[in-house]
Amino acid sequence: MTLLSKTTFGSSEAVEPVFWGKDCVGLLDQTLLPGREIYIECKSTEILIDAIKKLKVRGAPSIGVAGAYGVVLAALEVQIELEPKRLEAFKLKLEALEAARPTAVNLSWAIKKLKQVVESWSGQFNLDLVEKLLVESKRIHQENIEFNIRMANLGAECLQGGPVLTVCNAGDLATGGIGTALGVVAQGWKIGKVSHVFACETRPVLQGIRLTAWELNRKRIPYTVICDNMAAALMQKEKIGAVITGADRIAANGDVANKIGTYALAVLAKAHSIPFYVVAPSSTFDLSLSLGEEIPIEERSEEEILSVLGENRPPFSIPVWNPSFDVTPQSLISAIICENGVINQPNREKINKVLTGN
Amino acid sequence: MTLLSKTTFGSSEAVEPVFWGKDCVGLLDQTLLPGREIYIECKSTEILIDAIKKLKVRGAPSIGVAGAYGVVLAALEVQIELEPKRLEAFKLKLEALEAARPTAVNLSWAIKKLKQVVESWSGQFNLDLVEKLLVESKRIHQENIEFNIRMANLGAECLQGGPVLTVCNAGDLATGGIGTALGVVAQGWKIGKVSHVFACETRPVLQGIRLTAWELNRKRIPYTVICDNMAAALMQKEKIGAVITGADRIAANGDVANKIGTYALAVLAKAHSIPFYVVAPSSTFDLSLSLGEEIPIEERSEEEILSVLGENRPPFSIPVWNPSFDVTPQSLISAIICENGVINQPNREKINKVLTGN
Repeated sequence: MTLLSKTTFGSSEAVEPVFWGKDCVGLLDQTLLPGREIYIECKSTEILIDAIKKLKVRGAPSIGVAGAYGVVLAALEVQIELEPKRLEAFKLKLEALEAARPTAVNLSWAIKKLKQVVESWSGQFNLDLVEKLLVESKRIHQENIEFNIRMANLGAECLQGGPVLTVCNAGDLATGGIGTALGVVAQGWKIGKVSHVFACETRPVLQGIRLTAWELNRKRIPYTVICDNMAAALMQKEKIGAVITGADRIAANGDVANKIGTYALAVLAKAHSIPFYVVAPSSTFDLSLSLGEEIPIEERSEEEILSVLGENRPPFSIPVWNPSFDVTPQSLISAIICENGVINQPNREKINKVLTGN
Repeated sequence: MTLLSKTTFGSSEAVEPVFWGKDCVGLLDQTLLPGREIYIECKSTEILIDAIKKLKVRGAPSIGVAGAYGVVLAALEVQIELEPKRLEAFKLKLEALEAARPTAVNLSWAIKKLKQVVESWSGQFNLDLVEKLLVESKRIHQENIEFNIRMANLGAECLQGGPVLTVCNAGDLATGGIGTALGVVAQGWKIGKVSHVFACETRPVLQGIRLTAWELNRKRIPYTVICDNMAAALMQKEKIGAVITGADRIAANGDVANKIGTYALAVLAKAHSIPFYVVAPSSTFDLSLSLGEEIPIEERSEEEILSVLGENRPPFSIPVWNPSFDVTPQSLISAIICENGVINQPNREKINKVLTGN
């Protein structure tokens, strides 16, 4: 991994969490935010997979875009093989890439899209195919940006005004566009339907206090960070207009897997009569899964939790449980906002209709 | 503040978070746990007040005991004044002591008890009075220990079995006895009514992962620490037998102020049909307050939240909200367990009856 100077790819105007560099995938290293804005180059699929696992790039749509560019990298890398061996080597790399993170479906969705390009390719596995894969990856990336804008407009219209609460980071960094949940928030702020943003810090990886705070500060949107366990007290004290979150995978019935803590916010929102919105592009839906309980939930290392102790480690080991996601049942969701439209009180039929037009 | 060797006051068998030393209040410095077990001497009320503010001693009943011994310290200190000036100087010190932390009522309760000793004293403000105050302080301390045992037995009887979930630390460290919530848990474990303990890490000060983990490890009770935002996912996944918490102040109607995050757990417990128990001695009730919303909620420094970023601080300031407590309405509480008895579905009448016998 090589460090790129920020001016090469980034600017203070637009955040580019993922981009195609010179035969490499460029990433803004999200593990170093908000302290440092460092762009890195992933020059091999192996390095990219490691970056995805370590959360240097995260957020379901951003992982999807990174995965797409990762496929291009893989196709480039296998050029060193003799032509007949390239496809097999390519497939192995794609398997490893797809396994980097299990919950967000956007990764496997993007890889599947690019596999289709390969399948419909009648020529040799050569640089022409690589070029075609790069075109398709850039199209996915661009589409992502456009869908974000559509969702932001659709979502902002749903809001009734007042402060909103969000969790994790579903903004620029998570999407490569203006964000899913935070896109709606930013648009809502612009049109006067959001007065303030409350952001859950989002233990254990702190995407809220690190990444959402960083984005809202850049956008000059007024915000306050709270610890995750303060959301209920906040709802008791302030009239919260909406809870708005992203999603990592949505089952056919509308159950939503998203960052751990989302389900708690949905229960609390219901108890306080606050609308609960999920903002996610159609690529986040996994119609092959009937119910949310079928979604694989990634459990991550103990160290993510225990590192909060810093130097203050005990002489004994502390057992922890660290699921990265939870599943919010559709019954708690006021609406899912996707680029195709707003799915109020989501269920199997409505989702199918919006996604397939049937 | 002087360091005491652990063997002077502590032993691996019993934890003594607060004790009367040689003309000083001894404390196990809870800010250093679980990494180090260091006992400190507070040789003046000023030092003790600072220790209370900095959470070196915390937990409503422990603060009460520390406050009682603090009154003895104050009475000792004013002996350097001429006799006629002692009472006035004493009162000033008590005001400062009482203001150290606003939410837990046990501090002002203990100070009030000792003020009554002074009021009923007909002699000079001399060392005989100090001795009498020390006797009363030790009685309060001892009573605390006995009440813990009574509550543990009463509470354990209420449990239906299975794993339990707790928040913050309401054990030895918080009480000077075997604990309120954790006393019930330990007794429940002993009689087979608790199979496992889940402990919320309890941001921002991490009493769960630091103190509750330390205590449960000492007691060899099997446990798992979770981040606060994982409680809902846990309830969805595991059949939790009960949520058990302590309390910092209970209003006359049964509304309970306790560590931030407690109210969220109560809402989540209700949504998952899990009994929600509060364990607190009668000294935690404040019958002068009709409703929970009248309880003063301490807001603490931004730094408690922001320090989680370690070296990774951004070049901009992050606004945060840091209430240390929240209020759980009585309607969400299955029972309050106090030394006088179990108050099921607490309300004004039942509480009054159990506390006053009327």
